[in-house]
Amino acid sequence: MTNSTPRPRRRGARVTLREVAEAAGVSTATVSHVLNETSGARIGPDTRQRVRDAADALGYRPNAAAKNLVTGTTRFIGLVADAIATTPFAGQIIHGAQDAAWRQGYTLLVANTAGNTEAERDAIAMMLDHQVQGILYSTWYHRAVELPAALRETNTILVNCYAPGSDLPAVVPDEVQGGRTATQALLDAGHRRIAFVNTTTPSPAHDGRLRGYGEALRAAGITVDPALVFDARPEQEGGYDVLPRVLEQGVTAVFCHNDRVAMGLYDAVRERGLTVPEDLSVMGFDNQEIIAAHLRPPLSTVGLPHGELGAAGVRLLLGQQDVPPGGRLEVTCPQVLRASVRNLGAAG
Amino acid sequence: MTNSTPRPRRRGARVTLREVAEAAGVSTATVSHVLNETSGARIGPDTRQRVRDAADALGYRPNAAAKNLVTGTTRFIGLVADAIATTPFAGQIIHGAQDAAWRQGYTLLVANTAGNTEAERDAIAMMLDHQVQGILYSTWYHRAVELPAALRETNTILVNCYAPGSDLPAVVPDEVQGGRTATQALLDAGHRRIAFVNTTTPSPAHDGRLRGYGEALRAAGITVDPALVFDARPEQEGGYDVLPRVLEQGVTAVFCHNDRVAMGLYDAVRERGLTVPEDLSVMGFDNQEIIAAHLRPPLSTVGLPHGELGAAGVRLLLGQQDVPPGGRLEVTCPQVLRASVRNLGAAG
Repeated sequence: MTNSTPRPRRRGARVTLREVAEAAGVSTATVSHVLNETSGARIGPDTRQRVRDAADALGYRPNAAAKNLVTGTTRFIGLVADAIATTPFAGQIIHGAQDAAWRQGYTLLVANTAGNTEAERDAIAMMLDHQVQGILYSTWYHRAVELPAALRETNTILVNCYAPGSDLPAVVPDEVQGGRTATQALLDAGHRRIAFVNTTTPSPAHDGRLRGYGEALRAAGITVDPALVFDARPEQEGGYDVLPRVLEQGVTAVFCHNDRVAMGLYDAVRERGLTVPEDLSVMGFDNQEIIAAHLRPPLSTVGLPHGELGAAGVRLLLGQQDVPPGGRLEVTCPQVLRASVRNLGAAG
Repeated sequence: MTNSTPRPRRRGARVTLREVAEAAGVSTATVSHVLNETSGARIGPDTRQRVRDAADALGYRPNAAAKNLVTGTTRFIGLVADAIATTPFAGQIIHGAQDAAWRQGYTLLVANTAGNTEAERDAIAMMLDHQVQGILYSTWYHRAVELPAALRETNTILVNCYAPGSDLPAVVPDEVQGGRTATQALLDAGHRRIAFVNTTTPSPAHDGRLRGYGEALRAAGITVDPALVFDARPEQEGGYDVLPRVLEQGVTAVFCHNDRVAMGLYDAVRERGLTVPEDLSVMGFDNQEIIAAHLRPPLSTVGLPHGELGAAGVRLLLGQQDVPPGGRLEVTCPQVLRASVRNLGAAG
């Protein structure tokens, strides 16, 4: 140990108010008033300074529980997540929410429910017990939810989900814009005959991305051909299985519902002795780094803005940002270009 | 709304001790004694029942901050994670720790530091402010860490990491056993000439898995051939690039440092017109589901026990499990067999 500063504390021991009071030669009540900045307490500046110096020298930490009682405010925001152990998506929401919460002096209480109703009830009860300022109720993929009744007891912001029939504010990805962005990237590279491998799962992503695909094509003067729209399981196997039908349509490019579908489709392309992007250009969706950035060639895709969903949820909860009319805040899905789209050199 | 139970609470409003006292016809002090189960308070069973009934009817929730002050205990455990937004690994540690903590009535305070020293300092200060029972300090991959000084102020358990020169308890994956298990799966299928693609990153995983590989081979009467051990970047590109050198050695099987390396190696195998497992059997490591379960063919691998690392960390912190001599608890890495290992039919 070369650390020359005194080490005032034994592990696990906490400096008490009494120890600070003894060091400063004042009562514990005086210490409490000074450190909690109680309004109206008549204590001279010299005494205040002496108490603060003693607290600093001893390494005193205010007890957050006591402080909450004194100031009448708690500084917690709850975040319920349904699947933090499967993908990094929930982690990204937590990351974004935490940064926004910390900036305002709030601590995030995170609870993973693994989709279990009982765990969810426990999580919300725990948060209410700690008098959270409100709860961010989040899902790992964008979907409709049925709200647990206990959420009525506090302010709630839905993150990456929405509750049909409820007026609770929701922050969600802009699926329509995302679908438009992915399709536009292919149009910009000169592609005209573009397939869309959508998901078999009914969801806002299914409907929104399809709408965005159609909007981008129509804006480019291309009639949507229903024969070019496919439904596949939203994972590698779905992309692998769908490729023969996609190729039959003589397309030069395909927009895949997500990066996992694109990964499976890559495998099928390679097994046919074909190459991405020479024989087929591919756009993904999600920007799941561990896959998209490391396919051969690296996959161009559209990102899901999970971090921003979490951050915006905190801002809405704390009133730093207005809830838009209709109650739904849609966050832009950014384009991420890598190397899976061939430029046909005739962009128009 | 078909819910027939009364809805006693407006959103965000909290039933106070005073309201319960009025409803029960007793003083707030009596309510406090009953609901906090203060020892020594002389209150008759009828009164106690009346207070509890009133609290139930009104939907009273004890204020956790007040309760902590009364009982003198806090029920928080801190968990510091360095990267919850990149992989699901940290999420799995959180999941395991949360379940173990909840079972004991503790709430987890989770903080993501993104490897940022300042965020780490803030996180630990926040946890100490809330008088956590202790802190689980975790990393997303198994490595040595330098401990932030503030951890001295509380009980600390290291999870998925260790601090050289410190005597703090650490829960880590058993890398040696994991390497042995992966190699043994190939030996069991009759392979004798087995390559090991290790990582270029110096780490406990590098050293431990290599040692396990050697132990399994020697136990099977096979001399370790240094020409069969390769170092590659621990991601897809590393596996892709190393394959030609692996094939030159005439091996029938390869154990890859992780699933991402195996994924890149699969690509290189396919580009040569070869097939896994007919031409080359492959074992991975990590069991990163989104990759391993969906490669073609699905990858046999060894799992990292992140959930159990988190759960064991909580048990050590709460004294429910003894710290082993030497301070390090090594957790078994389980074998996960899928379809990437060909049985040569001459095992044993």
